[in-house]
Amino acid sequence: MAIRIIGTGSYIPSKIEKNEDFYNHQFLNADGSAINNPNEVIVEKFKAITGIEERRYITKELVNSDIASFAAKKAIEDAKIDKESIDYIIVAHNYGDLKNNCQQSDTVPSIASRVKHLLKIENPQCVGYDLLFGCPGWIEGVIQAKAFIASGIAKRCLVIGSETLSRVIDPHDRDSMIYSDGAGAVIVEENDEDGGILAHTSATYALDEAHYIFFGETNNPEINDQRRYIKMYGRKIYEFALTNVPKALKTCLDKSGKDISDIKKILIHQANEKMDEAIVQRFYRLHKMKMPEGIMPMSINLLGNSSVATVPTLYDLILKGQLEGQEINKGDIIMFASVGAGMNINAILYQV
Amino acid sequence: MAIRIIGTGSYIPSKIEKNEDFYNHQFLNADGSAINNPNEVIVEKFKAITGIEERRYITKELVNSDIASFAAKKAIEDAKIDKESIDYIIVAHNYGDLKNNCQQSDTVPSIASRVKHLLKIENPQCVGYDLLFGCPGWIEGVIQAKAFIASGIAKRCLVIGSETLSRVIDPHDRDSMIYSDGAGAVIVEENDEDGGILAHTSATYALDEAHYIFFGETNNPEINDQRRYIKMYGRKIYEFALTNVPKALKTCLDKSGKDISDIKKILIHQANEKMDEAIVQRFYRLHKMKMPEGIMPMSINLLGNSSVATVPTLYDLILKGQLEGQEINKGDIIMFASVGAGMNINAILYQV
Repeated sequence: MAIRIIGTGSYIPSKIEKNEDFYNHQFLNADGSAINNPNEVIVEKFKAITGIEERRYITKELVNSDIASFAAKKAIEDAKIDKESIDYIIVAHNYGDLKNNCQQSDTVPSIASRVKHLLKIENPQCVGYDLLFGCPGWIEGVIQAKAFIASGIAKRCLVIGSETLSRVIDPHDRDSMIYSDGAGAVIVEENDEDGGILAHTSATYALDEAHYIFFGETNNPEINDQRRYIKMYGRKIYEFALTNVPKALKTCLDKSGKDISDIKKILIHQANEKMDEAIVQRFYRLHKMKMPEGIMPMSINLLGNSSVATVPTLYDLILKGQLEGQEINKGDIIMFASVGAGMNINAILYQV
Repeated sequence: MAIRIIGTGSYIPSKIEKNEDFYNHQFLNADGSAINNPNEVIVEKFKAITGIEERRYITKELVNSDIASFAAKKAIEDAKIDKESIDYIIVAHNYGDLKNNCQQSDTVPSIASRVKHLLKIENPQCVGYDLLFGCPGWIEGVIQAKAFIASGIAKRCLVIGSETLSRVIDPHDRDSMIYSDGAGAVIVEENDEDGGILAHTSATYALDEAHYIFFGETNNPEINDQRRYIKMYGRKIYEFALTNVPKALKTCLDKSGKDISDIKKILIHQANEKMDEAIVQRFYRLHKMKMPEGIMPMSINLLGNSSVATVPTLYDLILKGQLEGQEINKGDIIMFASVGAGMNINAILYQV
């Protein structure tokens, strides 16, 4: 018995926001003070660290549940299954449905119910719920699908990661350039092939780290409304991630009984290129190895950080041959990994 | 092997809002038209249908994650366990943390991360996530705990239902009188006793029903802001619930192999007294029986509808001997059941 992904889909929003599009922003430090650099320099530094050149935003009329349903539809088609055969719809997100220019998040009904409605799935036994777990939410959804399948509660699950961070960014914060919108989805099911999910690990660090990513006020002290935006302590997150994520990847690998040399690709949450590289390098260093070239496919340069959507989108792009120089083939062992708000870390070792 | 609840706790907010406290409200119909009755009559009719005399609101300085942690702390104490031994913290809610007089819901980090932080739990392997599933969220959380335990992923889970509906109510809507705040929590674990979770059922009706409970504008047409509030199509929900919930309860009972006469108590989501009674009456009618007296303990008269919190709070009150005329004893078979936004329905047959 294996628990396998049998179909993938993603939705990449049509609106391209380039780095140059931020040249006219008034960026300020978190304390409201001016940044002693022109925006061209701020943007250049930003690109050097994060690797991001452009990102995607959804168009005005769309909300999160719409793009979640677009990705889901593609995954269902790719898996060639009857949509009425799905037992669970698990939607990982963080901010619900946020209309354009509206600060109130809409989470009732759940995004999963909205997706089920949009997909016109009739079967009441298909249970839809939302999962909030920071950026690692989609991987956690796959782990939950594993639990449902392994315990005999379900046979087939649709797991979606969908987020519209463009609706919660502070235009006066440099970090706003990181964030992007997107949705990725997979169909996970039990079948009698080999491989599939070989091991997983999951962790929540909340004692000191709970509020490293948080909802906070604009950096602009002249704006005195109550509105809050996604905010983060970048330096703290960087140090936290480098200390804890490589160990988590090792834990996952050790659980599987596989060797590090068995790993063909590591699909890590696209948070920040330099950080991701440092994490994966340290993971290999823990095994006294040098990080192999091309082991870590990246889409962040063009897609930014779309939270829960980065990993399933990246996987979908590679499988469909849409990421230059990267491929994943039947039988390959790959790792999915993520770190984000909570602070949560998780990983899955997976044989395609 | 049994999956059992080994400890319970609840938090009942201190602020009592009586029906008379609504006498000075300007209630309007959904279309903004006046209601041709004085408030005393509106309130009296409301009480006759819902059974609600008073409800509880949290005090100004609190948010949802605070009261979730209060209930959780009590459940941990009641279970006499080391908090560091918990594998999962599952928090069912719908609107996140909403500060007093603030319309923006805060869900990053997750409420589960905040609860873990407030409980000062150190163990990173204790994974915290939030579950959005309408009012049936707490029961769904227990079902998810079952999946983790049955699949060998976890041994001990903290499942919390916590909600602060007082922060999303439209003062111009009669339905606002239904809603209340509260939190309930349980510790679920695997042990070698008999009983525990005997069967469960879960369903999502989203084709026509997804938006029966929704986020909508105030009934007051003179207010022209974008702010939205919890809203519902009461008549549609009533008909939906009466059609589908009794069948779901029967499905759950049938799965367990137990007889309806084995059921000692039905702890149903406290949404509306008349609706709950009609549901349980129909459930017995499906088995050609009359609803037994006292089978359905109610706390709605004094506690209102606190969404995900009603069922775990009710269970805690009965176990602790705090609900007059009601008791549940070791070995008793009881049913937990709920219906709410999504529209979701679920039930668990449980042997104490």
